[in-house]
Amino acid sequence: MASTSPGYSVTLRVEMPPSVGATSQLTAAVASAGGSLTALDVVESHPGRIVVDVTCDATDVEHSERITQAVGGLPGVEVRKVSDRTFLIHLGGKLEVNPTVSLKNRDDLSRAYTPGVARVCMAIAENKADARRLTIKRNTVAIVTDGSAVLGLGNIGPEAAMPVMEGKAALFKRFAGVDAWPVCLDTQDVDEIVRTVQIIAPTYGGINLEDISAPRCFEVEARLRELLDIPVFHDDQHGTAVVVLAALTNALRVVDKNLADLRIVVAGVGAAGHAIIRLLMAQGATDIVGCDRKGAVYAGRATGDEFRKWIADNTNPRGLTGTLQEVLVGADVFIGVSAPNLLTGDDIATMAPRACVFALANPDPEVDPVQAGLHAAIVATGRSDFPNQINNVLAFPGYFRGMLDAGAHEITQATLLAAANAIANAVAPEELNESYIVPSVFDPKVAPAVAAAVREAATSSSSRR
Amino acid sequence: MASTSPGYSVTLRVEMPPSVGATSQLTAAVASAGGSLTALDVVESHPGRIVVDVTCDATDVEHSERITQAVGGLPGVEVRKVSDRTFLIHLGGKLEVNPTVSLKNRDDLSRAYTPGVARVCMAIAENKADARRLTIKRNTVAIVTDGSAVLGLGNIGPEAAMPVMEGKAALFKRFAGVDAWPVCLDTQDVDEIVRTVQIIAPTYGGINLEDISAPRCFEVEARLRELLDIPVFHDDQHGTAVVVLAALTNALRVVDKNLADLRIVVAGVGAAGHAIIRLLMAQGATDIVGCDRKGAVYAGRATGDEFRKWIADNTNPRGLTGTLQEVLVGADVFIGVSAPNLLTGDDIATMAPRACVFALANPDPEVDPVQAGLHAAIVATGRSDFPNQINNVLAFPGYFRGMLDAGAHEITQATLLAAANAIANAVAPEELNESYIVPSVFDPKVAPAVAAAVREAATSSSSRR
Repeated sequence: MASTSPGYSVTLRVEMPPSVGATSQLTAAVASAGGSLTALDVVESHPGRIVVDVTCDATDVEHSERITQAVGGLPGVEVRKVSDRTFLIHLGGKLEVNPTVSLKNRDDLSRAYTPGVARVCMAIAENKADARRLTIKRNTVAIVTDGSAVLGLGNIGPEAAMPVMEGKAALFKRFAGVDAWPVCLDTQDVDEIVRTVQIIAPTYGGINLEDISAPRCFEVEARLRELLDIPVFHDDQHGTAVVVLAALTNALRVVDKNLADLRIVVAGVGAAGHAIIRLLMAQGATDIVGCDRKGAVYAGRATGDEFRKWIADNTNPRGLTGTLQEVLVGADVFIGVSAPNLLTGDDIATMAPRACVFALANPDPEVDPVQAGLHAAIVATGRSDFPNQINNVLAFPGYFRGMLDAGAHEITQATLLAAANAIANAVAPEELNESYIVPSVFDPKVAPAVAAAVREAATSSSSRR
Repeated sequence: MASTSPGYSVTLRVEMPPSVGATSQLTAAVASAGGSLTALDVVESHPGRIVVDVTCDATDVEHSERITQAVGGLPGVEVRKVSDRTFLIHLGGKLEVNPTVSLKNRDDLSRAYTPGVARVCMAIAENKADARRLTIKRNTVAIVTDGSAVLGLGNIGPEAAMPVMEGKAALFKRFAGVDAWPVCLDTQDVDEIVRTVQIIAPTYGGINLEDISAPRCFEVEARLRELLDIPVFHDDQHGTAVVVLAALTNALRVVDKNLADLRIVVAGVGAAGHAIIRLLMAQGATDIVGCDRKGAVYAGRATGDEFRKWIADNTNPRGLTGTLQEVLVGADVFIGVSAPNLLTGDDIATMAPRACVFALANPDPEVDPVQAGLHAAIVATGRSDFPNQINNVLAFPGYFRGMLDAGAHEITQATLLAAANAIANAVAPEELNESYIVPSVFDPKVAPAVAAAVREAATSSSSRR
């Protein structure tokens, strides 16, 4: 299923004769090696030779090397330099910290710094809640990771996690004007993670936990929710659950089914699966079966931890046992947040009519989406090269925008449900179909709609408390 | 010595008759109450009345209230609103986090985030040192405080310290393009501070400790220097010492004295005093006497902590005892980093001819600078309303710029001395005189000159290791 991606884009700087035939050969060489040519710029011209920047997308690193060899093997062509565009844009990192105040002259300095700042400090010392008004706490979220479960890359540590957290911070600003800051922790001890986040919390109006491996992430989240008076969001759980619920809401509109009546199978009961199950139940789902590597989780089965035990005790009302394939028979909805290639098209064929398949393992889904599509009414994945991409960026920026604007103190199911419904409703009835159950991540209406819904839900729930 | 400051600037919105006489009375009322009128804007005009924004500087909060009363007492004038300009510019905080990469379309997202970012993560996982090239660690400094000794305000805690740390971060960017981030810790336990900074360090290329009370700050700094492979700078110590040495270097050029021959008295042996003494000795000073509240520190006197003991053992070669006033007799240089109004003009008169007085306690110096100026050749303070302001902003932005550019791993005396000399040399010989021993904080030459000198010193010292 490999296709070329701008994530693997290289620019080859080649020196070659200036003939038309030579550039045609160049184009042909890239194509014959399977590369997607995106630009061909002549950057220098000399008598008898030109220098050309050939930019093309590849499928992976080895592929870009094969393209380079194909180009370099042409008669009279010399590859002088290969630039990896992804690395180029990462040089020096992807964030900067800018003052929002002028510091041009002494008057500016007297107000933004000493002596004027002293009065602002004293106002906060007298009333700590003023920090939300007079400091960056108003608009700033910490993106906290220990680097233990980064993307599909595993336990790569805090330094190597930085590019992901920086990217996430960039998305927070781009989509919802939220200032977010990477907090990459050089410890994987739960007690230390909890205590460190508690100690650094005064600066922040919210905490976004990210890529911390299960089951430690559950304990970190639960303890921080107890300790802090700012929202503690775990994107791998809450963000994923919100977008899955949004997508499922619209999928059910397309297939004309009712959530409360459905048989739902969730493969993977880690951070994401656990949160998805809880949120779907909060929205009214009644028959969910969770599966791990050993098959269905049911009451009485030996479970590894208290979080899995919660699933055993609160789901699977019909007490199903057996493998994923076995419990999938007759199900209306499959949601996979587990591992690649667990199922085949034939397995999907055993599901109920007009089934919905959300195969979200990345980069390779639980089932080939093309095969699944032969039997299911709706297929969604985590990939950007198929329709119906389940992408958390639809949720977290707008969610935190709403929570910060509400001055919210904690995550509630009400705010998560509000976010999911706002995302679902961002797809207009006339747009809704099998290939468009979630809005585009670039749809500028989504984040403001999510923010407004979350702000309202946070405000009305806090007034109930 | 109180004078009006833009740090205490208010805007009064007043409604009044439109006659010329009425606005003249307004101006007169502000002046008679001692305010400095900076702007008078008619913002609305109606038949029979106008709305005017009167902006003026006051000396303090009470003074701004007296001005408001004087204006409100005028016949026909009604004060509708009083806006404190310092608070206004602090609303929502003073920093924002911005992406440095484009996120306009799917190609951008594929490179800056998934899937492209995975390769960048793996490169760092394989070689941790690449974090300095491919993440914000390249250019980012943590401003770490526990809020225990903020400005002259004392132990006001981490939330109330935020406006100062945000201001400092703004200065880092404004003067040297360094990205700096406030890390305000909700603990004052030395072990916890050290461990927390160690845990969050992967994100940063340097640590700037700020406003942590002595003697805890010494231990925090010493232990972090052992644990981390990035520079740990304590601005209250190193920054102050660098600017004091720069100022003293130029002062000695003016009075034509030689550092090695001088008698120097330092009042205050906390963070700043301690670092000043060490740096002056590194530069060649031989006869320094430190004083605390009990008078001269000398070998054999009972001392409170190991840092004070170091001073007792390594300074005061003539073994002076007695009060500050007593040891000041005959001294060439007084450096005060202690408390207001310890000395009078008469005390300064007992110093050696062409004495230098650096009275740096803020906001009120150790001696009235006007009185000191009757007897000393050169007077410097920490205040912006007298000549020769000793301001750390001359040092820390350029210092960290140089250290980050060198990829430096630790603070060395060589880099501090290089910074001090660069600041001193930023005053040209023809500019140098009794009232201009340090450059203006707005002189754009200073930070680049400091950065270049520090970078060179850091590079040559690391090549020696």
